[in-house]
Amino acid sequence: MPGSMAFERDNIARMHGYTPGEQPQTGDVVKLNTNENPYPPAQAVLDAVHGVTGEMLRRYPPPRASGFRDTAARVHDLKPENVIATNGGDELLRLAVTVFCQSKAGQPQGPGGMGETDPTYSLYDTLAEVHNTPITRIDLRDDWSLPDNFAAKLNEAGCRLALVVNPHAPSGRLEPLDTLRSVAGRFRGVLLIDEAYVDFAERDALDLVRGDEAMKNVLILLTLSNGYALAGLRFGYGLGHAELIAALDKARDSYNTDVIAQRAAVAALESRDHALKNCRAVIDERRRLAEALAQRGYTVYPSQSNFLLAAVAASGASAATIYQSLKAGGVFVRYFDHTRLRDKLRITVGSPEQNDALLAALDAL
Amino acid sequence: MPGSMAFERDNIARMHGYTPGEQPQTGDVVKLNTNENPYPPAQAVLDAVHGVTGEMLRRYPPPRASGFRDTAARVHDLKPENVIATNGGDELLRLAVTVFCQSKAGQPQGPGGMGETDPTYSLYDTLAEVHNTPITRIDLRDDWSLPDNFAAKLNEAGCRLALVVNPHAPSGRLEPLDTLRSVAGRFRGVLLIDEAYVDFAERDALDLVRGDEAMKNVLILLTLSNGYALAGLRFGYGLGHAELIAALDKARDSYNTDVIAQRAAVAALESRDHALKNCRAVIDERRRLAEALAQRGYTVYPSQSNFLLAAVAASGASAATIYQSLKAGGVFVRYFDHTRLRDKLRITVGSPEQNDALLAALDAL
Repeated sequence: MPGSMAFERDNIARMHGYTPGEQPQTGDVVKLNTNENPYPPAQAVLDAVHGVTGEMLRRYPPPRASGFRDTAARVHDLKPENVIATNGGDELLRLAVTVFCQSKAGQPQGPGGMGETDPTYSLYDTLAEVHNTPITRIDLRDDWSLPDNFAAKLNEAGCRLALVVNPHAPSGRLEPLDTLRSVAGRFRGVLLIDEAYVDFAERDALDLVRGDEAMKNVLILLTLSNGYALAGLRFGYGLGHAELIAALDKARDSYNTDVIAQRAAVAALESRDHALKNCRAVIDERRRLAEALAQRGYTVYPSQSNFLLAAVAASGASAATIYQSLKAGGVFVRYFDHTRLRDKLRITVGSPEQNDALLAALDAL
Repeated sequence: MPGSMAFERDNIARMHGYTPGEQPQTGDVVKLNTNENPYPPAQAVLDAVHGVTGEMLRRYPPPRASGFRDTAARVHDLKPENVIATNGGDELLRLAVTVFCQSKAGQPQGPGGMGETDPTYSLYDTLAEVHNTPITRIDLRDDWSLPDNFAAKLNEAGCRLALVVNPHAPSGRLEPLDTLRSVAGRFRGVLLIDEAYVDFAERDALDLVRGDEAMKNVLILLTLSNGYALAGLRFGYGLGHAELIAALDKARDSYNTDVIAQRAAVAALESRDHALKNCRAVIDERRRLAEALAQRGYTVYPSQSNFLLAAVAASGASAATIYQSLKAGGVFVRYFDHTRLRDKLRITVGSPEQNDALLAALDAL
C-alpha cells in the first residue's frame, strides 16, 4: 500500500529491498549460491579474533580504522588518505550512491543519477532505489564486455556515478585495464570499479588510483568476503583519490567498523599469501568445473572470478527447473530472473568435493 | 571549495561530518569523554567471540540477524518482527532519516524533514546533512524538559521524523513516559526515542511499542555500547511496530551486522544481569561524583545516564579553559561549543579511581 498509511517515503514504499542468496543455516547442503570461498581464512585472522579483550570491546574503536588504513596503504602501495574502511563492500557502494548521486522527489528521473551495466550485481539497483536516484542501464555486449559508447551514454544521461563490477557478475568476465582507463577518462562522473572478486583474476585495476597517473574520478572497491574467505566479517574498503575518500568519509556512520573486524582485517591483509594460495586452488577447480559442465552440454563463459555462468542446453530442462531440482536435493546454486539470464545458472566454484557433488546431482537429474 | 571541482553532491561538499569524541589510543589517560562503561562486558560475550570459527567467518552471516532478533524479542517481550539489528545505534538513526525524511535538492527547506530538541546528540544534524533534509530545532526548557508545544511545532514544520534522546544527552534528564506518549499521540510523523543510555535510568519507554497499546509511530533505539560495555562491538537495535521495522529493513545494507557481533550480542542480552549490576555501580558513582562536583561549586543537573552535565561556577575559569587544562593533564571530558553548553562540561561517570583522578585534577587546577 504505497503511501496509504505508511510513514516511509514513497520510494521506500515502492521498493522491495535486496534479496540475498539463500543462507540455509543447516550444515548439510552443498552451498554454491553466494560465492563463498570454500577454504578457511588464515589462522592469523582467527588469532586476532580470539585475542580480543573486554577492554577492547568496552571502548569505542578507532573511528576511521586508522590501523587498517595504514596496513592497506602499505600492502597496496598507496597512502592512508587513499583508503576508507567500510562495513562490507556494500557500505562503500551505499556511500558512493549517497555522496555522488542526487536524491530525487517523486519518480526518479533526469540527470544526477547512477549508471550501471545490464546485467550487473543486483544490489546496485536497490541502493539507487533507497536513495531515489535515477538508474541508467547500459546493455553489455553478447560476450558481457562493455560497449564502446559506455562513457558517452553515461554522460548523455548525466550520470554522476557509474558502478562497474570487474570481474563482472554474474559472468566472471574481466574487462581490460585499458578499457577501464578509457571509460574513466571520458566519463564526467565517478567510476567505481567493484573488484569484489579480483583475487581470483589475473590482474587488478589499482594502477588507475596509484602514483602520478592516478585518476581523480576512480574508486576501487575491495572486500575480504571472497578472496580472504571472510564473508561473515563484513569488511570492505575503498581506494581512490584523497578527495573522493574524504567526501565518502563524511557520510560514513561515525564508527562504521568494529574493533574486532578492524583487527581481523589487518591480520587478513598481513596474511595475504594464505588467501592467494587458496584463491589459486579455486582457480584450478574453476578450470576443472568449467570443463565438466561443458562436457555436459552447458555453455560456460570464461570466468576470472570464483563462479561460473553456465547456459543450459536449449534441448534440455530449463535453468529454473534445474535450479529447483538441485535445491530440492540440497545443492544450492543461483538463478536470476533477468532477460539474458533465465537460461543460465551462476555456480560458485567450491571445493573439489562440493563441485563433484554438484556434478553428480546434475548427472542424476 | 564546495562545488568547484568536486564530484560530491553540494550538501556533502557543504558539510563537515561528525566529530567523535577524542579516542586517544594510549592507555595512560583518564577517559571520561565518550560515555564508555568503566566495567568490562560479561565473560559470556568474550566466550562467544573466542568461540568464533573459520567456518563461521567463511560464510555470510544471517542477513537479518535472526538469532539476535529472536533473543531480543524474548528479552523485551516483543516479536521478532518488532526488532531490527543494526551496526551500532548510529545505523538505526541513519536508516530512520533515510526512510522517513525527504531528501531535498539545494538548501534543504520546507516540509518532510527531521525534528529534534536543541541541544541534543550532535550526530543527528550530521545525518540530516548527509540526507539533505531540513532540520527543525526546538529549544528545550531551562531544565532540559520538552516544551508543551513540542509535537505541535513538529507538525507545523511538517517533520516526518523526530529524534528524542532519552535520557537526554548531554544533560542526562529522563523525560516521563506520559510526556513521550502524548508527543507520539499528537505528532503526525515517526517518533524515534533514542534510549542509548536507558540502562542507567529508572525506566524505559518500551510500553509504547508493546502489547495492544503499542503506538504505530514509535521507534525505540537501544544499543549495547553503554550499558553492556560494548562500544567496540558496534551493535544496536530498533524496536517498534512491524510496519516501521519492515520499512527500515528495506534500506539496510544487505548484511549489515557481522557474524561475530551477532553472536556476541546474543550473549550480551542473555547476560543482562551482569550488565545491570555494573550499571548500578555506575549509578552509585554518579551520585558520589555529582555531590563532589557540587561541593566544588559546579551546578550539576539531575542525570539518569552515565554522564553528568556540570556548569562551572561563574566566578572561576571558563568551561573551555578547564576542559583544555584537564586534557593537558591527561583527563578527557567533553566540551560542546553550543550556546547553552559553553559554560558546561559533560563528564562520563567512570570507575571510582577514574572519578577520583578527575576530582584531584580539578582540585589541582
